[in-house]
Amino acid sequence: MRVPDEKTPVSSEEKPPDGSHVDRRTWLIGAASVLGATAGELLAPSLLPAGEPAPEDPARVPGLAPSAYGVRSRFERAERVPTATHSLTPHQSLHGIITPSALHFERHHNGVPIIDPDRHRLLIHGLVERPLFFSMDELTRFPSVTRTLFIECSGNSGKEWKGPTGKTVQETHGLMSTSEWTGVPLATLLAEAGLKPDATWVLAEGSDAAAMTRSLPLKDVIKDALLCYAQNGEMLRPEQGYPLRLVIPGWEGNTAIKWLRRLKLGAAPFMTREETARYTDLMPDGKARQFTFVMEAKSVITSPSGGQRIEPGFVEIRGLAWSGRGKVATVEVSTNGGGSWQPAQLQEPILPMCHTRFRFGWRWNGDDVLLQSRCTDETGYVQPTRAALVAARGIHSSYHYNAIQTWKVARGRQVTNVQV
Amino acid sequence: MRVPDEKTPVSSEEKPPDGSHVDRRTWLIGAASVLGATAGELLAPSLLPAGEPAPEDPARVPGLAPSAYGVRSRFERAERVPTATHSLTPHQSLHGIITPSALHFERHHNGVPIIDPDRHRLLIHGLVERPLFFSMDELTRFPSVTRTLFIECSGNSGKEWKGPTGKTVQETHGLMSTSEWTGVPLATLLAEAGLKPDATWVLAEGSDAAAMTRSLPLKDVIKDALLCYAQNGEMLRPEQGYPLRLVIPGWEGNTAIKWLRRLKLGAAPFMTREETARYTDLMPDGKARQFTFVMEAKSVITSPSGGQRIEPGFVEIRGLAWSGRGKVATVEVSTNGGGSWQPAQLQEPILPMCHTRFRFGWRWNGDDVLLQSRCTDETGYVQPTRAALVAARGIHSSYHYNAIQTWKVARGRQVTNVQV
Repeated sequence: MRVPDEKTPVSSEEKPPDGSHVDRRTWLIGAASVLGATAGELLAPSLLPAGEPAPEDPARVPGLAPSAYGVRSRFERAERVPTATHSLTPHQSLHGIITPSALHFERHHNGVPIIDPDRHRLLIHGLVERPLFFSMDELTRFPSVTRTLFIECSGNSGKEWKGPTGKTVQETHGLMSTSEWTGVPLATLLAEAGLKPDATWVLAEGSDAAAMTRSLPLKDVIKDALLCYAQNGEMLRPEQGYPLRLVIPGWEGNTAIKWLRRLKLGAAPFMTREETARYTDLMPDGKARQFTFVMEAKSVITSPSGGQRIEPGFVEIRGLAWSGRGKVATVEVSTNGGGSWQPAQLQEPILPMCHTRFRFGWRWNGDDVLLQSRCTDETGYVQPTRAALVAARGIHSSYHYNAIQTWKVARGRQVTNVQV
Repeated sequence: MRVPDEKTPVSSEEKPPDGSHVDRRTWLIGAASVLGATAGELLAPSLLPAGEPAPEDPARVPGLAPSAYGVRSRFERAERVPTATHSLTPHQSLHGIITPSALHFERHHNGVPIIDPDRHRLLIHGLVERPLFFSMDELTRFPSVTRTLFIECSGNSGKEWKGPTGKTVQETHGLMSTSEWTGVPLATLLAEAGLKPDATWVLAEGSDAAAMTRSLPLKDVIKDALLCYAQNGEMLRPEQGYPLRLVIPGWEGNTAIKWLRRLKLGAAPFMTREETARYTDLMPDGKARQFTFVMEAKSVITSPSGGQRIEPGFVEIRGLAWSGRGKVATVEVSTNGGGSWQPAQLQEPILPMCHTRFRFGWRWNGDDVLLQSRCTDETGYVQPTRAALVAARGIHSSYHYNAIQTWKVARGRQVTNVQV
């Protein structure tokens, strides 16, 4: 902030309630002192051509008309960085808990299919009394449920197993996002089809060219799984599974089958490629854990974070915390690499299986510091240190890395990813 | 839904856990029975050219690559209908409570200004100890707050004062939307500037070519008002006030000054054009109510709603309820024009000054019916009938119409706007 100088007539002669005349000259002279321009320059019409992208004084130029479907400001550039298989949410640039649908992370096994919703069908078959096809029109007519939920890829932070690899929080934690999801409960549709007594697993299959499939234990998903058609108010985005996506609250993202076209009921897991060759966790003894669905409690400071620079003085430390087992109970912040911890503020509402925004007011004195956050969920589970996680799991996994993240703030004011 | 016929081998010979081979032939034959095509036609490669916008079987065509910033499906067409001054949210097509930012209603007094955030300044002056300018970088460094809040134009449903004017819920109730807003509390910035003892009102001014201004009583806004820079996770959209918007929870939308550039503290209201010639409520005795800021409890059924058609059988009645005074306590639904009422289900979380999604499972027998919803908020205020509202306020207002909305479903299955 800046205090207007003596020559800046910020107290104009307007006398309430005489009127609210907008003294633009007053405003512009004030603005000029900030911009380093003279008031004369700012007031000169030649500096305010109609075609200028951002006029010196927007109040002197009639604005643009309303639109049918809005777009963001040309000055905003937060974006995902696409590769052939994924793109990452830029958490360092985001606020609150809703991820804009345009910036929700992507992870595909053979790209984003183009699907005409009028032709899309969901088939439910296998160990059911009545195999059924559903159109999208039919699915949207069933009783619906809306929940705000995170989806986290099991590979989120996966490169951190080997060392402090990601330069930014987008690179370390960009494979997760939160949306408001609306759809029909899986249980409702299974009741329509009628489960046979020996149906204990369900295979979910996407319409993508990889025909992405996962087997899911029915007893664990029957309560909460949703077949979603809407995200953040509107219909799903193509890269998020349009027109139909399975969402299982708190489970690893690869179970949230996109472009869902088939559910097959069976008496055992179907042992698909994605649950044998992929998405298992190699343990130190050489065995692999399979069907590790739940994403355990985790948190990360999104600002200040890797690649950012900060100034000495007041800094609001901001981050996200979440747990696949329920609500976040507490988040603690350390500014000395875990030597001591203080409670962060949690932004209401705190929802189960959902990102929770936390904040911690801090004054940086300019010394080297190590910033960390630690989440405890309502089951009492505490997010582990890297040392504790590696002691239990080794370093040969690709998935389910949920250790405490450390950001180093150096005297040079640059924030970097380190492991302690 | 449709039961596959005898010839449809929906139970393939896959034997779990032998593998999860995706039997595309099985799928396509199943789909063929739905689409009315023969399996042979669907399987013929000539029907699946690579350039086809929506291939018959998306699983046979590699999909599109991830992107930097996503766009919606080409098959989705929900949109606002812009006029010179406003565009309306299509609630008949939306789900949950978050309004996609691209579909948030617009109402401008002289268009959408183009503002470079690096040059934007907020001035706080008038009855303060220290007049101050703030840059956007400075504002985003203050302690922040996130809240999910509705914004409703005081003119929402305003044309209904004269009769059942709007054909759709977009036309009757499209001047309201809900977003997750993040910003810095007004109280924080006023504390930086230091209030003088006689400061009791604050003038808020936008950077648009109308220099939209409103006077706000300080005692009522000091607790909750936010200066917001983010909406639904990302920075504000241009038409929503980029880069800075005042949001006062529960108050009429015109107080949510967009493109905010100036706050002036005074000892009385400033009597701007917008609070004398506009935004007052003409009463039956010829006097006008002024400074009627709070949006009272209201609700509307968004589906089925005007312009839609429904089929006899199960219908989930869906709608939105809200109150500017706090949380929604109950929503009731009537299918007989208010003759009797039954409680609707409210979707958690129920947040203060925020849309609440309600649902009511109903079976339509095909007869003429009159659908209504009625909201009661946590203060005990009950949304009035049109007759009660008109008895108290007359029909010469333009603003603050919050009567119960009636949709008629006729035997012809068409839903229309009526008043009873």
